[in-house]
Amino acid sequence: MTSSALAPPTLLARFRDVRALTERLASPLSPEDQTAQSMPEASPTKWHRAHTSWFFEEFLLGPAGGHRPFDPTFRYLFNSYYEAVGPRHPRPHRGLITRPSAEEVGRYRAHVDRAVDELLAHAPGGVHDEIVELGLNHEQQHQELLVMDALHLLSHHPFGPAMVQRPADAPTDDPDPLPQSWRAVPGGLHEIGHDGKGFAFDNEGPRHTVHLVPFEIAERAVTNEDWLAFMTDDGYSRPELWLSDGWAAVRRHGWRAPGYWRQEEDGRWTVFGAAGVRPLRRAEPVCHISFYEADAYARWAGARLPTEAEWEVAARDVAERRGGLLDPDRLHPGPAGRHMIGDVWEWTSSAYLPYPGFRPAEGAVGEYNGKFMSDQHVLRGASCVTPAGHERLTYRNFYPAASRWVFAGLRLARP
Amino acid sequence: MTSSALAPPTLLARFRDVRALTERLASPLSPEDQTAQSMPEASPTKWHRAHTSWFFEEFLLGPAGGHRPFDPTFRYLFNSYYEAVGPRHPRPHRGLITRPSAEEVGRYRAHVDRAVDELLAHAPGGVHDEIVELGLNHEQQHQELLVMDALHLLSHHPFGPAMVQRPADAPTDDPDPLPQSWRAVPGGLHEIGHDGKGFAFDNEGPRHTVHLVPFEIAERAVTNEDWLAFMTDDGYSRPELWLSDGWAAVRRHGWRAPGYWRQEEDGRWTVFGAAGVRPLRRAEPVCHISFYEADAYARWAGARLPTEAEWEVAARDVAERRGGLLDPDRLHPGPAGRHMIGDVWEWTSSAYLPYPGFRPAEGAVGEYNGKFMSDQHVLRGASCVTPAGHERLTYRNFYPAASRWVFAGLRLARP
Amino acid sequence: MTSSALAPPTLLARFRDVRALTERLASPLSPEDQTAQSMPEASPTKWHRAHTSWFFEEFLLGPAGGHRPFDPTFRYLFNSYYEAVGPRHPRPHRGLITRPSAEEVGRYRAHVDRAVDELLAHAPGGVHDEIVELGLNHEQQHQELLVMDALHLLSHHPFGPAMVQRPADAPTDDPDPLPQSWRAVPGGLHEIGHDGKGFAFDNEGPRHTVHLVPFEIAERAVTNEDWLAFMTDDGYSRPELWLSDGWAAVRRHGWRAPGYWRQEEDGRWTVFGAAGVRPLRRAEPVCHISFYEADAYARWAGARLPTEAEWEVAARDVAERRGGLLDPDRLHPGPAGRHMIGDVWEWTSSAYLPYPGFRPAEGAVGEYNGKFMSDQHVLRGASCVTPAGHERLTYRNFYPAASRWVFAGLRLARP
Amino acid sequence: MTSSALAPPTLLARFRDVRALTERLASPLSPEDQTAQSMPEASPTKWHRAHTSWFFEEFLLGPAGGHRPFDPTFRYLFNSYYEAVGPRHPRPHRGLITRPSAEEVGRYRAHVDRAVDELLAHAPGGVHDEIVELGLNHEQQHQELLVMDALHLLSHHPFGPAMVQRPADAPTDDPDPLPQSWRAVPGGLHEIGHDGKGFAFDNEGPRHTVHLVPFEIAERAVTNEDWLAFMTDDGYSRPELWLSDGWAAVRRHGWRAPGYWRQEEDGRWTVFGAAGVRPLRRAEPVCHISFYEADAYARWAGARLPTEAEWEVAARDVAERRGGLLDPDRLHPGPAGRHMIGDVWEWTSSAYLPYPGFRPAEGAVGEYNGKFMSDQHVLRGASCVTPAGHERLTYRNFYPAASRWVFAGLRLARP
Repeated sequence: MTSSALAPPTLLARFRDVRALTERLASPLSPEDQTAQSMPEASPTKWHRAHTSWFFEEFLLGPAGGHRPFDPTFRYLFNSYYEAVGPRHPRPHRGLITRPSAEEVGRYRAHVDRAVDELLAHAPGGVHDEIVELGLNHEQQHQELLVMDALHLLSHHPFGPAMVQRPADAPTDDPDPLPQSWRAVPGGLHEIGHDGKGFAFDNEGPRHTVHLVPFEIAERAVTNEDWLAFMTDDGYSRPELWLSDGWAAVRRHGWRAPGYWRQEEDGRWTVFGAAGVRPLRRAEPVCHISFYEADAYARWAGARLPTEAEWEVAARDVAERRGGLLDPDRLHPGPAGRHMIGDVWEWTSSAYLPYPGFRPAEGAVGEYNGKFMSDQHVLRGASCVTPAGHERLTYRNFYPAASRWVFAGLRLARP
Repeated sequence: MTSSALAPPTLLARFRDVRALTERLASPLSPEDQTAQSMPEASPTKWHRAHTSWFFEEFLLGPAGGHRPFDPTFRYLFNSYYEAVGPRHPRPHRGLITRPSAEEVGRYRAHVDRAVDELLAHAPGGVHDEIVELGLNHEQQHQELLVMDALHLLSHHPFGPAMVQRPADAPTDDPDPLPQSWRAVPGGLHEIGHDGKGFAFDNEGPRHTVHLVPFEIAERAVTNEDWLAFMTDDGYSRPELWLSDGWAAVRRHGWRAPGYWRQEEDGRWTVFGAAGVRPLRRAEPVCHISFYEADAYARWAGARLPTEAEWEVAARDVAERRGGLLDPDRLHPGPAGRHMIGDVWEWTSSAYLPYPGFRPAEGAVGEYNGKFMSDQHVLRGASCVTPAGHERLTYRNFYPAASRWVFAGLRLARP
Repeated sequence: MTSSALAPPTLLARFRDVRALTERLASPLSPEDQTAQSMPEASPTKWHRAHTSWFFEEFLLGPAGGHRPFDPTFRYLFNSYYEAVGPRHPRPHRGLITRPSAEEVGRYRAHVDRAVDELLAHAPGGVHDEIVELGLNHEQQHQELLVMDALHLLSHHPFGPAMVQRPADAPTDDPDPLPQSWRAVPGGLHEIGHDGKGFAFDNEGPRHTVHLVPFEIAERAVTNEDWLAFMTDDGYSRPELWLSDGWAAVRRHGWRAPGYWRQEEDGRWTVFGAAGVRPLRRAEPVCHISFYEADAYARWAGARLPTEAEWEVAARDVAERRGGLLDPDRLHPGPAGRHMIGDVWEWTSSAYLPYPGFRPAEGAVGEYNGKFMSDQHVLRGASCVTPAGHERLTYRNFYPAASRWVFAGLRLARP
Repeated sequence: MTSSALAPPTLLARFRDVRALTERLASPLSPEDQTAQSMPEASPTKWHRAHTSWFFEEFLLGPAGGHRPFDPTFRYLFNSYYEAVGPRHPRPHRGLITRPSAEEVGRYRAHVDRAVDELLAHAPGGVHDEIVELGLNHEQQHQELLVMDALHLLSHHPFGPAMVQRPADAPTDDPDPLPQSWRAVPGGLHEIGHDGKGFAFDNEGPRHTVHLVPFEIAERAVTNEDWLAFMTDDGYSRPELWLSDGWAAVRRHGWRAPGYWRQEEDGRWTVFGAAGVRPLRRAEPVCHISFYEADAYARWAGARLPTEAEWEVAARDVAERRGGLLDPDRLHPGPAGRHMIGDVWEWTSSAYLPYPGFRPAEGAVGEYNGKFMSDQHVLRGASCVTPAGHERLTYRNFYPAASRWVFAGLRLARP
């Protein structure tokens, strides 16, 4: 038996695992929690569960033929942004789609799961691997979004309800952060981008040469303790530290601390997270900051953000990673360590643009990445709510500069 | 045994009936349906169920003493607009309050019901009657709002889901409307307003004298057939028919038919209602029109809207009424008849202002009506979704001029 | 020679006087001042000068025949809101119409003046009187608007420039206000509205009967001293004093004093006016308040606003008036006295609605008043910037409730 | 006499020339034209004239000592965005600053001119050269902005008034465009950025190495004829050609042709420009397009935009340039030729980001460029309204992606 003959069962097993994790993440959320939408950029949990299923129906089961759609209206309701597929429900109104119910969405998922199971069991080896692989990676992205969006929704509740139970062994101490240190990276020509072996999103390639000036990169991410020093030094009140748009955002939104931070009556800072409000821990990487804040902090620290090329070159040599979401009850970053992947996404100074020679895929899936390449900023690494196995050295995450509901922090570079 | 001794049981029975009707109205709505909010002016079903219970906790059980609130956070979450009670959750964000769940709100209601039962059973006869009566009328108002708001939410769904089952005996014919006719009402001095016997809202009094010029009033409301003639005559395209603000609203919103009307591909008009989409019936009173549309129609017809004083004087002599909501499965108006109460609220030409000598009640309940007396328009009568027994000849309903989610139509007056 | 033979010269003289006053009011304003628009509700000085000329071209010279328009594009540029005349430049963009220049508008005015002169000199006696009279009253309204709008514009300048020179004899003392007193007005049937003798706007009729309850009315308007007491008693911080929409406006706009009031560093209040910033004078009627503030003050004072019918009945017996704008260098109210006309417009509690039997004029001039009869509030009297001779006992001025750039105050009524 | 002794007179001569050109550009604009502001991103002519003078007062005359400011309020009124200088008038309200007048601004300019003349005449050689040079380049930038902003303002006038007289020798033919051709540029390591010799803005450096893949670049810019083909092929209606944000902009703004294009009743296209409306000329480079449109066109054409590094490397070998603004009566691009500088700014695919090792200048002038380095797009070349002598191979212009009032077009690259 060849390894290629073995592939389909393995893919199917992964399919089942990924699909099950989505449901496990959604399970502590009530039908009500799963329906509300807290901002146009966020989607209801229920929508994420349905949209990831629609993706398999639209791009795998439909083209494969013989599939009976669970409900023909879902093609309109659960298309996200694929213009080539046809009209779709407007994103800002996803929170008004009270039907189907969360329970019905569960039946929809089961229907799709059965159909995919059936299809993969009988299809010639590997013929659907590519699109299934894409669908699984797509669903993993939405798993992180599901957590981000649910947390954002709950953060609007005046009484800060918990999404998950606080783990019994949740740490209660506040250890000192790892001291900062710097690592030199040589300049000259480097290769970055995905080499085409194994799965990657289209935006990670083609692999290409970049010329870098020698630089140093911080060994650990900026911590909450670091950030408190920035705040104490009036970081949020000094326009000279900020990009012009960033300073406008500070004033417009009244930012004076990272997202989800709350100052208690006694002056202490607490953080709202998936397990509700908990004390700030100094050693953890700062999280839920915008690009503007990351940039201002770096300027204040006499450093700068790395470019994405610098980040990738520097990260290549760091073996240690920390996996996320293996335990869905632990939805916050651990103490900042020497790894560069798995605590918080790290804002880079790079705009999200096509690599030289980039070509999106043909057809509707070509809309997956390329059409968003304007006015977005690249984040690298992965966060504590990125599904384990989804992280990749060449991974290019991207968000608008003012976004704060991402599990995002920063790492310094210099000079 | 005196009749006064009998009063408390009767009030308690009414309390139970009213409270039960709210739950019956909500019962076809899923937890998801009960949570979403389609516009700032509308509230989630769940919120209506909780707020009407909060009203009894805040104004009856709390002052009576000895009451243990079901949940102390509800005082903040379910206060509507009573400044004197304290801070409250902002109205436009009611749809983000996913906790408590619809089910938990059911337990809250039962908790309050038990407490009120208990209180009324043991209190000296009549001591709480006034506030209980107010609470019941308050809840009846919210029953109509609950239906209006749920219908508005479902109307945003691209596939027009039904709120209730279409009754098996729903009419399928399209009978001719009752012919229009006019009734003369003499001018001179008339008394209007509530005389203080039995319950009325504070805004219905004091009873006072008005001087009227003789006028005629239409015997039946304007029908869908009438409205089609207005549309055919380009009523929505002729600025000379409209108030300036009304014409601006027509252009801004693109109005070309009443709310919930939809034109099918073959040109026929259908109407979205509680039982889903159904064919337009010509004999029914036109419904879901704004004040601006009512006013423009009257001008087009060479007539005018009656003032609220004219309406009340004219209605005094019309015996027949049609009760609403007795059968929650019938949530649309019947054919326009000679009655003036029970099909659709009727826009008057009157602004909502205090009657001469008006004084709001003392304390927080004084905020019930008086503070809304600017830039609102009076509607008279009652609609098919006004609870039976809640209608009153002197009742003053009020909405902003552009509102279309009210079950509102019009009746002509002249000259 | 009959009096009717004398009328045309008299009207022509008035025509010249009114036209000249407009130019005199505009003369201290530079071409730049005359072009800018500070909010959609306000218009540039240059626009007022042109629009009042357009009115004569459109409604007098054009229909009379033989008139060569000064510039055919002006029909589009300087139509205000007459739908029947054709399309027009959108009101919020009047400040972008930099051509024609202020000087060119002067030539336009002269062109129209000559044509009207010519027409009236040769037309059969009285044939154009009605429309000329309307045009003159129209222009007088715009004279007041011109001052209001120019003042509003200059108030946005960070350094408070003056529109007119402070008169050499401007008072510098701060005399005590006239003590308040009350006058009883009997109830019963009264006639109000214009009786058709002499000019009146269509909205002032028909004269009709109203039934009033006996009431008392204050002999003088509320003064700045009175208002300071309201402010000291936290009037702007107590929601129970305010209409719901009014309280929302207070919070949205951050109101804590009347419009154009400024608190200096030493705590004293000054007022920005046509002659620049000057100290607050306690005896003057409070000015530049919204309807919401007038209503809240009255509630705080244990009184109420009069209805427009009460105001008119009460004012009938007050002989003294104070003329405005005779001296364009005096653009602020004098000390509050016993007159009811000529210092500040007085907010009433009445909504702006048609009188019983009201019919707008035929044709485009029918749009003058009637189409604004929704969600506006009636003011009575006249202000220090109302042209002398334009005031009238039956005059119905109207503005939205939040307006503060009007020269408006209030007078109390009770009970 | 050494050449260094000669330098100050030369700089002074240039100072006088540049200052005079600003006034010559403003001279056809009336005081009214010079005051209005058509959008927050644009500024009144009068403001440009004053702000460029303020720059010399703030950064040259003030620090040099002994200068009496023309008017102390101007420091607040005419600061653009320098946070370090202090508070300033909000940009969106520049159109409400009717005082000082355009004439007074002329006096302000003369006052500053005299003071700079005086200072340069007596200062030790070269001591002020750097800041004067910056001030001149700053004023040249504002000369282009002045024309852009005035044109934008006039484009809002419903009757398309001209800013300048159409030159007597304005071409009336419509010659065929130059045929397109492609030039190969070798890949590998290239140096880009300013080398520090002569003036450059801080954002043009440091010079640094980039690695390029071999590519081809078009010999001439995309023409109006090319663009008509894109429109004929439904370019504005096919979402697959557009970035996601670009497609949203197309729908939001209703774009269906470049800015200032107008379709006449007979279907022909005309263009609004400084000399009023004129027929479209096919051979001219397309102008007044957004980044989104440039990007969509390139995708439609099977090509792409060049990066700014590619553009700079390719332009290095093109000798010919076309100077702008030498003749202020010619404010539109000539036919597209082989030059890369002087017709239209060319959108590149590059985001506006700091070059490796970039450091802004110390003090307030450090705010000149660096703080805008987010969410802007680089344009290269220069336009027909860029002052002659201001263009530079390394010049980095930048605007947000949706901007259409820039004189901007595009040049294709491939593969």
